[in-house]
Amino acid sequence: MKKYRLMSPGPTPVPEKVLLKMADTVIHHRTPQFQSVLKEVNEKLKRSFRTANAVHTFASSGTGAMEASVVNLLSKGDKALVINAGKFGERFGEICKAYGVDAVMYNVPWSESPDPAIVAKTLKETPGIKAVYSTLCETSTGVVSDIQAIGAVVSKTDAVLVVDAVSGLFADKMLPDEWGVDVVVSGSQKGFMLPPGLAFLSLSAKAEKLIASSNLPKFYFDLKAAIKAYGKNDTAWTPAVSLMQGLNVVLDMMLTEGLDNILSRHARLANATREAMKAIGLELYAKNPSNGVTAVRVPEGVDGSAIVKKMRDEQGVTIAGGQSELKGKIFRVAHMGYMDEYDTISAVAGIEMVLSQLGYKVQLGKGVGRAQELLK
Amino acid sequence: MKKYRLMSPGPTPVPEKVLLKMADTVIHHRTPQFQSVLKEVNEKLKRSFRTANAVHTFASSGTGAMEASVVNLLSKGDKALVINAGKFGERFGEICKAYGVDAVMYNVPWSESPDPAIVAKTLKETPGIKAVYSTLCETSTGVVSDIQAIGAVVSKTDAVLVVDAVSGLFADKMLPDEWGVDVVVSGSQKGFMLPPGLAFLSLSAKAEKLIASSNLPKFYFDLKAAIKAYGKNDTAWTPAVSLMQGLNVVLDMMLTEGLDNILSRHARLANATREAMKAIGLELYAKNPSNGVTAVRVPEGVDGSAIVKKMRDEQGVTIAGGQSELKGKIFRVAHMGYMDEYDTISAVAGIEMVLSQLGYKVQLGKGVGRAQELLK
Repeated sequence: MKKYRLMSPGPTPVPEKVLLKMADTVIHHRTPQFQSVLKEVNEKLKRSFRTANAVHTFASSGTGAMEASVVNLLSKGDKALVINAGKFGERFGEICKAYGVDAVMYNVPWSESPDPAIVAKTLKETPGIKAVYSTLCETSTGVVSDIQAIGAVVSKTDAVLVVDAVSGLFADKMLPDEWGVDVVVSGSQKGFMLPPGLAFLSLSAKAEKLIASSNLPKFYFDLKAAIKAYGKNDTAWTPAVSLMQGLNVVLDMMLTEGLDNILSRHARLANATREAMKAIGLELYAKNPSNGVTAVRVPEGVDGSAIVKKMRDEQGVTIAGGQSELKGKIFRVAHMGYMDEYDTISAVAGIEMVLSQLGYKVQLGKGVGRAQELLK
Repeated sequence: MKKYRLMSPGPTPVPEKVLLKMADTVIHHRTPQFQSVLKEVNEKLKRSFRTANAVHTFASSGTGAMEASVVNLLSKGDKALVINAGKFGERFGEICKAYGVDAVMYNVPWSESPDPAIVAKTLKETPGIKAVYSTLCETSTGVVSDIQAIGAVVSKTDAVLVVDAVSGLFADKMLPDEWGVDVVVSGSQKGFMLPPGLAFLSLSAKAEKLIASSNLPKFYFDLKAAIKAYGKNDTAWTPAVSLMQGLNVVLDMMLTEGLDNILSRHARLANATREAMKAIGLELYAKNPSNGVTAVRVPEGVDGSAIVKKMRDEQGVTIAGGQSELKGKIFRVAHMGYMDEYDTISAVAGIEMVLSQLGYKVQLGKGVGRAQELLK
């Protein structure tokens, strides 16, 4: 018997009380009964996103909300600046391409954070950029962006700032309204401690103004329909009722723990993991690491995919490997959501054992001990 | 204490064992563990759709799959024939409009089924129609279309036939491959006995050919990405893992009961409801009623919205009212999915009691007795 331990950067483990709430009776969505759930959820979403703006919820994966942030704000031929520092920045570029948006790509080396000065320079040198697409935590690399600094740059211009916070939210600090973030995109299966199936999008007044003039075609992700329904405490299309019921419970858990406490918990677990990895001689991949996920370079001579496979199939601990150009070169351990000290200790212990099996010289318990020191 | 009885045409009740399966540990989707779930689900979906074609699953409401059936098959300015016999036929027209497709609307009076001869005539008189959009069961009216006859017409032409079977599937018979249906669109929250949050789309070879030439923009609902992933036993975007786990269980339940037995059960319950309504002097709305939902005309002098409200808020039985032009004029009782004789008897009993409270002259038990005769 091996327990199933989900330590990947999405999906993440779901608390039992949330799982059980989602197993509750399915109720009809066009009723006062569901409207009262929706009203609670919408208020708590604002608080958890730390914004005064409405947060819209879609039944889709996070990619759906990323698409919504393009097709509702821009028109064909519009210019957008896409900060591409990994798989998810790249995806914003692909969405722009699919819809005929002229995406100016700022390609950041994958282990690095985007440079706000380059964002400023690009905005200055390329007139007419209507939106800047960025990523809080690049799940594919474990790098966190300095959204505060980017916000300070973008908010001085006419462009809106869209941040993909699918995996960063609640792990890495973000204050959208103070920092000048117009649109925050997120998903349910990371910091939210829910299964995948919901996507979120918050919308500032500055961003909402762009909607009226946008001529890109849309239907399911049409924010005009979403805004109209939101005003009536409704949803444009049938919502994923059971996930919404779970969301209501999980938001209570989060607001009870406190958003700053959640951030501190993530910071503690991420720091302990990073220091443990260094203690056993491993190198971290990200220059500015996110507190949501730690990317570790696979040591010389070790088969990177074997680490992930042995962890998952023999130890029962699901971590992630590298994607695209990082395939086999890094592994990624998540700290997002429903995670505590002993999850981190287990992950470190598993990595030590598997690396040892794969011929890497490691003193078992050295990394674990380092994590314990930091978590005691 | 009143139990919550969901008798609306979506969402519908979910069996307890399915609810509990969805409360199981969330697993990672890019693993052999999830791939084995997906492989099973994909095979069982083909069997339950009664098609040899691949059935693609999206994390979205049924509207998302409706959109997918437009944006992947057509190009800007293409002609499509939209059979509009209610809210959902209308929606196909709205999607076409949003994407610049030239929709030729065949507006069917709302209580009637589309006439296959008019479909044939329109196809003949309007050259170049690439796709015909139709609805198996119009949830808004409770009318079932003769898809077999429409299929016989469309399959002789170059056009593909798309059927919105979101609410009809498993309640009203459909044999896509035999009848010449190219694309079947469905959703999880009706006959599938699941919560909302999944949408389905099956694709014939004839329909798949259109994908290559389609120039409408798309990303989240891009079938090229879905097909590529399907071939690798994967999904393009993060799937709604817990709903997929539930789907795997529910498909077993359905295939064990047998698709023909499921159809017979729906037919029995729908027939008993219809006859019970007639026994208490009420008139049915649909000329060709679906076995998924029964639409009943609100009798003269009774407040239609009060029926639905009292049923829901006082009796605990959630039925549906009329939409748009039918608001206050009909009420709708569903038979879809996880429903048996006693659900039907309860619905009829509730309707009798509420109508009586609202001043309609009814001999309590008369409709119930009629239903019992037919269900014994």
